[in-house]
Parts: sequence; C-alpha cells; structure tokens
Amino acid sequence: MATIETVLGKLDDNRHAALERLFALLAIPSVSTDPAFKGECRRAADWLADHLNGIGFEASVRDTPGHPMVVAHARANRRDAPHVLFYGHYDVQPADPLDLWQTDPFAPRLVGDGDATQIVARGAADDKGQLMTFVEACRAFHETGGLPCNVTILFEGEEETGSPSLPAFLDANRQELAADVALVCDTGMWNKTTPAITTMLRGLVLEEVTIHGPNRDLHSGMFGGPVVNPIHLLGRVIGDLHDENGRVTIPGFYDGVEELPEEIAEQWRSLSFDERAFLADLGLSEEAGEVDRSILEKIWSRPTCDVNGIYGGYTAKGSKTVLPAEASAKFSFRLVGKQDATAIVAAFRDFVRARLPADCRAEFVSYGASGALQLPIASEALARARRALAVEWEVEPVLAGCGGSIPIVGAFKRDLGMESLMVGFGLDDDRIHSPNEKYELSSFRKGARSWARILDELAK
Amino acid sequence: MATIETVLGKLDDNRHAALERLFALLAIPSVSTDPAFKGECRRAADWLADHLNGIGFEASVRDTPGHPMVVAHARANRRDAPHVLFYGHYDVQPADPLDLWQTDPFAPRLVGDGDATQIVARGAADDKGQLMTFVEACRAFHETGGLPCNVTILFEGEEETGSPSLPAFLDANRQELAADVALVCDTGMWNKTTPAITTMLRGLVLEEVTIHGPNRDLHSGMFGGPVVNPIHLLGRVIGDLHDENGRVTIPGFYDGVEELPEEIAEQWRSLSFDERAFLADLGLSEEAGEVDRSILEKIWSRPTCDVNGIYGGYTAKGSKTVLPAEASAKFSFRLVGKQDATAIVAAFRDFVRARLPADCRAEFVSYGASGALQLPIASEALARARRALAVEWEVEPVLAGCGGSIPIVGAFKRDLGMESLMVGFGLDDDRIHSPNEKYELSSFRKGARSWARILDELAK
Repeated sequence: MATIETVLGKLDDNRHAALERLFALLAIPSVSTDPAFKGECRRAADWLADHLNGIGFEASVRDTPGHPMVVAHARANRRDAPHVLFYGHYDVQPADPLDLWQTDPFAPRLVGDGDATQIVARGAADDKGQLMTFVEACRAFHETGGLPCNVTILFEGEEETGSPSLPAFLDANRQELAADVALVCDTGMWNKTTPAITTMLRGLVLEEVTIHGPNRDLHSGMFGGPVVNPIHLLGRVIGDLHDENGRVTIPGFYDGVEELPEEIAEQWRSLSFDERAFLADLGLSEEAGEVDRSILEKIWSRPTCDVNGIYGGYTAKGSKTVLPAEASAKFSFRLVGKQDATAIVAAFRDFVRARLPADCRAEFVSYGASGALQLPIASEALARARRALAVEWEVEPVLAGCGGSIPIVGAFKRDLGMESLMVGFGLDDDRIHSPNEKYELSSFRKGARSWARILDELAK
Repeated sequence: MATIETVLGKLDDNRHAALERLFALLAIPSVSTDPAFKGECRRAADWLADHLNGIGFEASVRDTPGHPMVVAHARANRRDAPHVLFYGHYDVQPADPLDLWQTDPFAPRLVGDGDATQIVARGAADDKGQLMTFVEACRAFHETGGLPCNVTILFEGEEETGSPSLPAFLDANRQELAADVALVCDTGMWNKTTPAITTMLRGLVLEEVTIHGPNRDLHSGMFGGPVVNPIHLLGRVIGDLHDENGRVTIPGFYDGVEELPEEIAEQWRSLSFDERAFLADLGLSEEAGEVDRSILEKIWSRPTCDVNGIYGGYTAKGSKTVLPAEASAKFSFRLVGKQDATAIVAAFRDFVRARLPADCRAEFVSYGASGALQLPIASEALARARRALAVEWEVEPVLAGCGGSIPIVGAFKRDLGMESLMVGFGLDDDRIHSPNEKYELSSFRKGARSWARILDELAK
C-alpha cells in the first residue's frame, strides 16, 4: 500500500494532464435550465462515466425524467474500510449575458501566472472544477495502489434547477447509494489560503410569478389610468417585500429562524471579516438587508428574498406606449434554521394575491422549495477532515455557513439518513453564476491534495 | 367644377382600387423605433411621395437626422381658396409580441363581411389607414376637376418615437408649411356611427430608467441580503408612484392640471359612457386610477403614469439565482392642462434618485417630453367640419378629448402659429399598438367621404 506522500507525489506528477481533463469537461455547455442544452447535459454525464470507468470505477449513466445521473463504485484496497459517497453536479448556470464574457464561456483557458493563475470558464468553480478535485484524488490512489475507502460517486445534472429528479432517484436507489458519510464538494474556502468546512446551509425557495391584468396588450394613452397595469402591481409587490429595516414582510416569514449558537458567533466575529472591502469589490459602499446584522450573518445564517429576474411590456430599444396584459418576476428565498419551505411558498403566494385587485390573477410556477440544514459540529468525520485540511493548508479550517443552497445535503439526511461533510475550494470572487467565472488553479491542485489527505485520514 | 356629389361618386367608384393602394402601404414594415427597419421607413416615405406625384401633387422625400419627411403641394382649382396643411404619419409601432398575431402583421387582409368588414394589419388604424382617407379624397377631387382648397401634405416617420426631428424640420420649413389651418387625422370616432372632433390632447413624457447597483451580476445566494438588488429598488420606485387613491405621488405632478369646463363636462356626462362594458371588453371588472374620476375623464382629461416595459436579471425559461447589476423600466406620463413637461421630467428623476442608496445610480434616457393641448371650440374651421361630418354621418359629432398624444398639434401651434382640426375615424377597439390591429372598412370609406365634404365645406 502506498503512503499518502506517494499519492500526493502522483497528483503533482499528473497536474498538467489533470488540467487537460478538466478543460475537456468545461468545454461541454451543460446548462441544465435551458432545454436547448439537453443533449450537452447528457454529453457531460457520458464524459464523466467514461472517465470514471478508466480509473477503476464501475460507472454508469442513469436516466431520470430530467437530466441523467452518473453513479460509480470503486472498492477500497483493504477490508473494513469506511464507505464514502461523493456528490457533485455537472450542470452549470446559463452563460448569459454573453457579451460580458471576455472570451467564450465554454472555451476554458488559464489567466495570469504563478500563484495567481486562474481557470476561466462557465462551471470552472461551480461545480466542475470542484468535483474534478475529488476525481483526480481517486485517480492518484488508483495509480498508486488503490483507494483507502470504498467510494461511491453520484453526479447529478439538475443542481442549478433545484434537483427535481433527485428525491425519486435517491428513493429508488437507497441501497446502492448507502454509505457511512457523504462528501460534498460545492462550497468555498474562507480565503485563498484558509480552507473551510461548511456546517450550515441555507434552504432555497424558487418561485416565478406572472400577474395577469387586461386580456390583451393595450395602448397606454388610450387605456392607461382607468385600466390596471400589471407592472404596477408587480412593482408594488416587490416594493412591499422588505420594510425600512431590510426585513422581509411576508407574514410568518421569520417563524423558525434561530439565533446563532454563541460558539459559532464567536468564531465568525474572530474572523474580522472586512465588510468595507467586501462591498468595495462590488463597487458599493452601503450595506443592504437587515440593519442589525453583520454581512457574514446575512449571508450565512439569515433568511433573504431576492428578485432574480423581471420582465413585462416592451423591453426592446426605444419606447412603446403599451399597457401590457401581464408582467412576470422570478423570486428566490434563502431559508435558515427551521423555516418551513412549504409554508413560505404558501405565505408568499398569499402575499402576492393580497396585492391584486379582484379582477387580476397571479400565476405561480415553483422551481423548488427546500429548507435549511445545520450539521453536527462534533462528528468524527468532521474531526478527521479538520486534521487533514490543517496539514495540507498549514492553518486550521474555518467552520463556516454558506449563503447558497445545496439541496442534496438535505436529501442525504432525510432520504438516506447520512450526514454530509462539505469541503470545497471555491472563493467569494469566483464569479459563479456571473460572466467570467473562474477557479483558482491553486484551489484545483491543493483541492485534489486535500481530498487525498481526507480519504487517507478517514481510513485510519 | 365638379359638385361634391360627383366627388363622392368618384370615391365610391374607386373603392376597390383604394383598398389595394392602402394594402400596398400597410405591407411596408415601417417600424420607426427599431433601427433594423430604417430602410423600410424610407420605403414607406418613397411610396407615399410617388403616390402623391401621381395625383397632382408635387411631392418629395426630405431627409432628417432620423426618418425622412414627405412634403407635397397641390393648388386649388380656384383663386382665393383657403390653404390647408394635412398631417399624418407613416411609421408604425413594433408588431411584437408576434406570436399573438393571427396572421403576419404586414400582410394586410380583410376580415368579416358587410358592415362588419375590418382591415387587419399593423398600422391599419394608426395611422396609415387614416392618412389614406385624406389621400383618397384628394385623388377623387383630382379625378373630377381639381381640389377646392390649396393643400400641403406633411407625412412624418417618427410619430411613434416622439417626433425628435420634427421641431427642427418645422423651423427650417416654416414658409413652405404655412397654411390657414392644419388637418390632422390620427384620432377616433365616438363610436362606429358617430364621428368626433378632438379638441383636447394629452401631452407625453417618455423616460427610460436603468438603476445600477453592484458592478457585476452576482450569485444571489452568496451575495443576496447585504448587497443591494436593483430590481428591488425599481420595484419600490414603481410601487411608490401611485398612492392608495390612484394619484401619482411625484411632488408637483398635478401643478397646472385644470378642472374640465362645465360645458364639456356636461357633454361627456350626456354620452352615458358604459364603464362596465369598457372594462368587460378587457376582461376586467374593477376600475383603476384616480378613485374620484370617471373613466372618460381619466383618459381624456386627467394626467397618468404608466410603466410600459420592465426588464432585469434572468428572464429566460427556468430559474437562475442571480443578483443583477442593473434593472430597467420604460415610463410614460400623459399630461393635461398646463402641466409642464420639462418640470415633470425633472421631478420624476428626483423621485427616482430619492429612492436610491448613495452608492447606486440611475441612468435616464428621454424619448420625448411634450405638454398637453386644448383647442378653441369656437373656431370657424371647427364649425365647418362639424357641419360636414353631421351631413356625412347623419349625427352631430362629439367634441372629444383624446388619451393619446399627437405632438404635431403642439408643434403646429407653437412653431407655425396654426390651429389644428383633429378629425379621425379610429375606434377604441382598433387594437392600435396591440396584436391584430384593425381599421373598420366603413371608417376607411366614410372617412374619405368625410374629408371630401370637409374640404368642400372649408372652401365655401
């Protein structure tokens, strides 16, 4: 059996080929939300399965009502080894607005040099670069004497659209996916040199609303005034959603929101997060949101509501004096603590309807609703991962919250009774979901080394 | 010299050919607001000039910084005849949303039969069908012994975008365009069998606003909460624009708004406008706007504000958890009485800016700003037009207000010192600016007959 140093040496030797492999995956535009890219999602799944079959896994692509799953298994090189389930997602966000990309989002490239080298492409950080850190670690074990743990891999292709096919898939494959602990690589580091383990995840409710007014588009000069304008109604809904203290005004919205445990609150305060620099990087100087909360709290442990898109009436160049028949907006809610996703969907819909005259109608589409998760800080797997990361990065990892949502963690807990260890190597400035998304080359390389150390540590 | 009966007989004989001529003009997609249709606007101008040259006018196409003007002159068949300036516009609104048209908007066709026959095409009523009523009247005079008045015709191609080139053109061609009275055919009838002369016109302010927040699109899960969302700011602006009584809340907005003269108010009340039917036709049952005003007042003589379009963030299918860098909306204000368009632009911009945090920025684009107009009810030209219309339609014409704006009427008054007689044959249900725009065949035919009678009456 190889020592961990041999495995790490193999990873270092493989580093150029590893980058080429990642670039091949990044070149596939697997945008899950847009039906036009359905074939590309399958191509990404096929690519991953082929790849895993080449490094000692038995991998297959599994159909779902949406985009396919990739499931792969490999045995440890010893008896009584622990069994881990690694999760990642091969789908990516849409690349638009395309004109803000400096180069083709699906033509990955390296930018900068030395420690500052970055991998630029849609999905570089979310999540293809991250999941490949684990795959590369597995390859290095495979090429130096085998894995120290039994490994099952699950890659899904619908993470960016709320994972609609996942619950049924987990339910149908409960036996096959059972493991001692889940490893999830879709989170970030504290900063470029300090790793983090995420122990709190916000939930996510996605709702699209279309408000219907008159039965056709009208001339606003001939009809404006006595005839209701759906954009006005939508504006009022949005304007009413937050009060002057930045709190969401939907009745019952804060039910189940809990104050942070003092231990965690203290660690976060000790991080001396630079709020001014955070805002300055965005070209801003004023903090938004709840007036009595810090930025870290707002992102990691407080619920929020954002409108992600809005459209109605004439949106092309120039002017058109139209009074539109309808107007639409896409809303997302981040949930924390014990907030009930289903109750919040219902309360939001009531909130919208309460702002409509009797002759107007709101149409709702749900793109997902999941509650928040808080992981036990005192688990054995967590302790081992902390040790492994501390050795690799030469600094104690931060136990962080996460503003985004990773519905799989809730599903693992609920459907498979499994805790998740969330370790990822993304950075706040990775521009995920934005033009010119990037992943630090150091994250990719030391990420793979970190997973090698974590697998090694878990097997001890 | 031919009698008016000869001229009307000629119009009736020409009716099939007249429709073919109108269809040829409607087939040209002269959408002025969209640069893609620039060549088509010129084609429409060329078509009109050629056409007028064929019926006794000296017509030419005149370049402007925007779309060209058509100017044409024809002399009366007698000395000391009055001189009229006829105005119309050959440009049309965009046809979108295209999928709501039952057939190609630029492939004109007849729908229905007998008295219910309608001409369906973009521009059928606004304004190609209307302007051709006058051209056909001129043709009938030309073919039966000549015009009773000296006639100058001015067709512009920028009416739907606020007539940006018009003031300079009028100023540069003041001498050439001088006349005793202007005739404008861009308004409607009271109903299908009752003509109207429009004596009040609302003004129009068109403003586009883009609110800029963070310097790039962000992941709403990673940044939402502490980072300002421009869609929220825009929603608040829109939500704040009207109070619970339907009044516009911009400070000073109602300065210069006057109460209706009792004479007019009484005529309007006597019309017994069916408010319930007006709303029911739109699929609505509740009146919007100022709570203490009738629908006719709101449309004809009260100021309003409408959002004509809104867009920001992710607007395609599915969800994307983006916190957008910017959000935009297109606003229009209809002005009445002595409301000052310039002051309202300034007050609106202040209103928007007052709702932004210090680190956000609003960018404004103006698509025009013109005040309202009220025409003297006691003019000689008006009296003659009333007589002519009463004979043709066998009912007294209504002296109406108009919800839309016809900036040319203000320009004629201000720049050429000329009053305008506004007679048009549109109907409320013509779906102008909407899919499946139509013009009644009876409006087209009796409209041409009406202009023949008005020209005859003005020359008496």
